[in-house]
Amino acid sequence: MPRFFMLGTNIKGGTALIRGRDAEHIKVLRLRPGEKLTLCDGSGTDYNCRLVRSDRDEAEAEIIEVVPCRAEPSVYTWVLCGLPKGDKTDFIIQKCVEAGASEIVFFRSERCIAKTDAVEKKLERWQRIAEEAAKQSGRGIIPQVSWLPTLTEAINCAMQTELPVLMYETGERESLSHALKGAENVKSAAVITGPEGGFEAFEADMARKCGLHICSMGERILRCETAPLVALTALMYESGNLD
Amino acid sequence: MPRFFMLGTNIKGGTALIRGRDAEHIKVLRLRPGEKLTLCDGSGTDYNCRLVRSDRDEAEAEIIEVVPCRAEPSVYTWVLCGLPKGDKTDFIIQKCVEAGASEIVFFRSERCIAKTDAVEKKLERWQRIAEEAAKQSGRGIIPQVSWLPTLTEAINCAMQTELPVLMYETGERESLSHALKGAENVKSAAVITGPEGGFEAFEADMARKCGLHICSMGERILRCETAPLVALTALMYESGNLD
Repeated sequence: MPRFFMLGTNIKGGTALIRGRDAEHIKVLRLRPGEKLTLCDGSGTDYNCRLVRSDRDEAEAEIIEVVPCRAEPSVYTWVLCGLPKGDKTDFIIQKCVEAGASEIVFFRSERCIAKTDAVEKKLERWQRIAEEAAKQSGRGIIPQVSWLPTLTEAINCAMQTELPVLMYETGERESLSHALKGAENVKSAAVITGPEGGFEAFEADMARKCGLHICSMGERILRCETAPLVALTALMYESGNLD
Repeated sequence: MPRFFMLGTNIKGGTALIRGRDAEHIKVLRLRPGEKLTLCDGSGTDYNCRLVRSDRDEAEAEIIEVVPCRAEPSVYTWVLCGLPKGDKTDFIIQKCVEAGASEIVFFRSERCIAKTDAVEKKLERWQRIAEEAAKQSGRGIIPQVSWLPTLTEAINCAMQTELPVLMYETGERESLSHALKGAENVKSAAVITGPEGGFEAFEADMARKCGLHICSMGERILRCETAPLVALTALMYESGNLD
């Protein structure tokens, strides 16, 4: 069933009035009166509807049932990544939205080689990638993509969650499975991964002192765009959200 | 430390003679006499070496120690994927090699929309992608990429392992965590994922009758190129190979 987020949609009584991009999209998809579609309110609730009429500017749908979106994981997860070069950001956004991230944050850390001056301009495009991936994978929310200028702020963000983890390549670390034990009982978590060159020792130390779990992900060297998805998947698996 | 697979390398006594592409690569990297490098024999053994000399055609290295490669997972895992369109194959190969796959197999199933007539020609390029990813991620083997013309053959391949799993989107399924319980004690496993449109019901039924675990991966719809990596990561995590 086609899914739309209710950007510019009005619910009134048992009827939804859909305007803007979604109305155009319904037209493009050639959905006909009587066909079913799902409207997501972006906060985890799905409205299963039947299309009544569709014009280029506006579509009208009858609401059949209102249900919680089953695709939302039990744990609200922040994926925080050292800004990588080029279009690796797009990959991270698309795949982590599919896999269940609730928020995606890029930040600058010591070894970042990507230019960070044009980041603000990219946010709109990144958000569109998140929206597309959320639709395609049947998510109940559109994960927010945002930017933090420093690792300190990223660590601070992670510290607000019940289960903050930072992935680090060397030195003394906790095993990932040890850190994630009990993840089925937490409501929020954060995974932090580094840019191309990983983290400096003092960056990992700072995170450790702030109470984050400093974890390895085995003996294989993961690319900076692969690590967030692998870490997130491990968390989703351990918390029962891949079953 | 730079890693090379010993394609065209001769070990004699405590010395390695490196020829061909690897010798060129050493030259391009401007490694100097005295610098360290690792030669992998492709079967899970690493030779840590010190460079003695390097010409364009040949390099010589002194072997310092011979150690088992720590990056190889405890479970030999076949990742079998319904052939997807375009360059999604490249993505699957690169990411699954990083994440610990031992063999990657593409096969044709009912809903494949990719053309399969030119597959044989692509195998060489696919193998090069696997080789690059194996080097980059520090693997001890170069995972083999191969092609099977039917799902039946893919299922047969999976049945030779101790833990064969097929991912399916609908109907009666076992939870992934239930299927993977005890994965730390198996020596071989297989994960099968579908092409863009997933599997037909009769295909999943066939796999079930052959004794495969038919599993879900949660309520989110994963793209056909994301599913193999997510499934493999769950297996690596459960078997203790992400710690």
